[in-house]
Amino acid sequence: MQTRFVLIQPSHAGNVGAVARAMKVMGFDDLVLVAPRWSNVLRREEAIQRASGALDVLRQARIVATLDEALVGMEHLCATAMTPRDFGPPTRTPREHFEMLLKKELEAQSHQAQEADLALNVVRPQSVAFLFGPERYGMANEDVYRCHVALSIPANPDFGSLNLAAAVQVIAYEWRLALGGFAPAAAPAPVQEPMLADAAQVAGMLAHWEQALTALGFLDPAAPKKLMPRLQQLFNRAQLHREEIHILRGVAKAMIEAAQAKR
Amino acid sequence: MQTRFVLIQPSHAGNVGAVARAMKVMGFDDLVLVAPRWSNVLRREEAIQRASGALDVLRQARIVATLDEALVGMEHLCATAMTPRDFGPPTRTPREHFEMLLKKELEAQSHQAQEADLALNVVRPQSVAFLFGPERYGMANEDVYRCHVALSIPANPDFGSLNLAAAVQVIAYEWRLALGGFAPAAAPAPVQEPMLADAAQVAGMLAHWEQALTALGFLDPAAPKKLMPRLQQLFNRAQLHREEIHILRGVAKAMIEAAQAKR
Repeated sequence: MQTRFVLIQPSHAGNVGAVARAMKVMGFDDLVLVAPRWSNVLRREEAIQRASGALDVLRQARIVATLDEALVGMEHLCATAMTPRDFGPPTRTPREHFEMLLKKELEAQSHQAQEADLALNVVRPQSVAFLFGPERYGMANEDVYRCHVALSIPANPDFGSLNLAAAVQVIAYEWRLALGGFAPAAAPAPVQEPMLADAAQVAGMLAHWEQALTALGFLDPAAPKKLMPRLQQLFNRAQLHREEIHILRGVAKAMIEAAQAKR
Repeated sequence: MQTRFVLIQPSHAGNVGAVARAMKVMGFDDLVLVAPRWSNVLRREEAIQRASGALDVLRQARIVATLDEALVGMEHLCATAMTPRDFGPPTRTPREHFEMLLKKELEAQSHQAQEADLALNVVRPQSVAFLFGPERYGMANEDVYRCHVALSIPANPDFGSLNLAAAVQVIAYEWRLALGGFAPAAAPAPVQEPMLADAAQVAGMLAHWEQALTALGFLDPAAPKKLMPRLQQLFNRAQLHREEIHILRGVAKAMIEAAQAKR
């Protein structure tokens, strides 16, 4: 899906760089600035520093004079707004809206929508623009009004002021996940899942430990208390792997050898 | 749930301020820095600027010399790592892990875990620490090893380098949502849901429009083409509200009056 991020009158070059980086880590690269405070913002020191490795996004970003120019070719417009607007589009959380948007059929929210012929008429957009207002004031009402939805990131009611790049990061992250996501970069390397020890292996290991703890004098077979059941529970919760059974048996063996040497 | 954010050897004061802000917007305030590059980082200009209104978080943040000190009292430790580590804890996405962690019972991932008596033994932690490594290198292996999980934010495989504060923002956001979340700040004011127009009201309005468009000479009743069915579909997709029916009928009335005046 074609995805564009539009910053309306951004005033801090550092934020613009950080936005480029936030977009790129989520695989987006179409950035448009509407009437930024600095006309050379894309080449300013702070922008370049905070963009880190996302210089390509900065380099191909466009600066335009009006929101109209920024939205050419975009079908579905998402405002971002932390404060509710009267008469505006519906306010939704990003997760909620993206789920609805990407479903082929509309949620059956109303009896009217439940009618199949209506649902079939709902067309999934091919392009989405996310609009962000100036750092200090947020989006102007008239810009929110032209959008299909006002996205509101659920935040602390006493301090809902997300930094511009942080807001872009959250939206870009949610949108990427909604589109199917990237595998986690740190996806477990293609090593084999460890084999879990089965009950018999655990029981055998525990018997070995019982022997060892007795040899050490730590466990009194005449008054064992609940020591072994406790160890059993502990090891159960650990979901022991097979090779860990070998390690634990090695420990038991060493305990027994030490106890014998002591005597 | 007690939640702590731990920054290991952060080197940029601006990042520390931005982290405080990212935490506060998600309702968290326990920040600990382990051996930061600048001992006065919490009072540095860039930290204060980027913290914006989260100065209270900065003010109560603690600086300690070792990771051990930072983790006092914390039960469940989440590393953050973009690159996989051998022998480390399991790697999971934040969303996946938080869901598992907050469930009372473990996922039935293995036949062993399916045993009810094991599942009942799983204790939900009361405190969680999120660990973030130095900006340039990420977490050291030995620090990752002591954690229960390595969280990996799914990101662009070709550019997975999230800014430190951006990573904190995403984790804090996901964790807050997992804990039940805040209502969206821009929650639709407690206005009534608009009542949808029913089919009869839509049909009546369309009949009025048909009359008006005919009066205007825009619709030729002898050769109506598909104009009215098209309008019907358009208005269906719009899911008209009852008061919008009144508006549209007002428009029809005005069209008819204009057409009559013209004659």
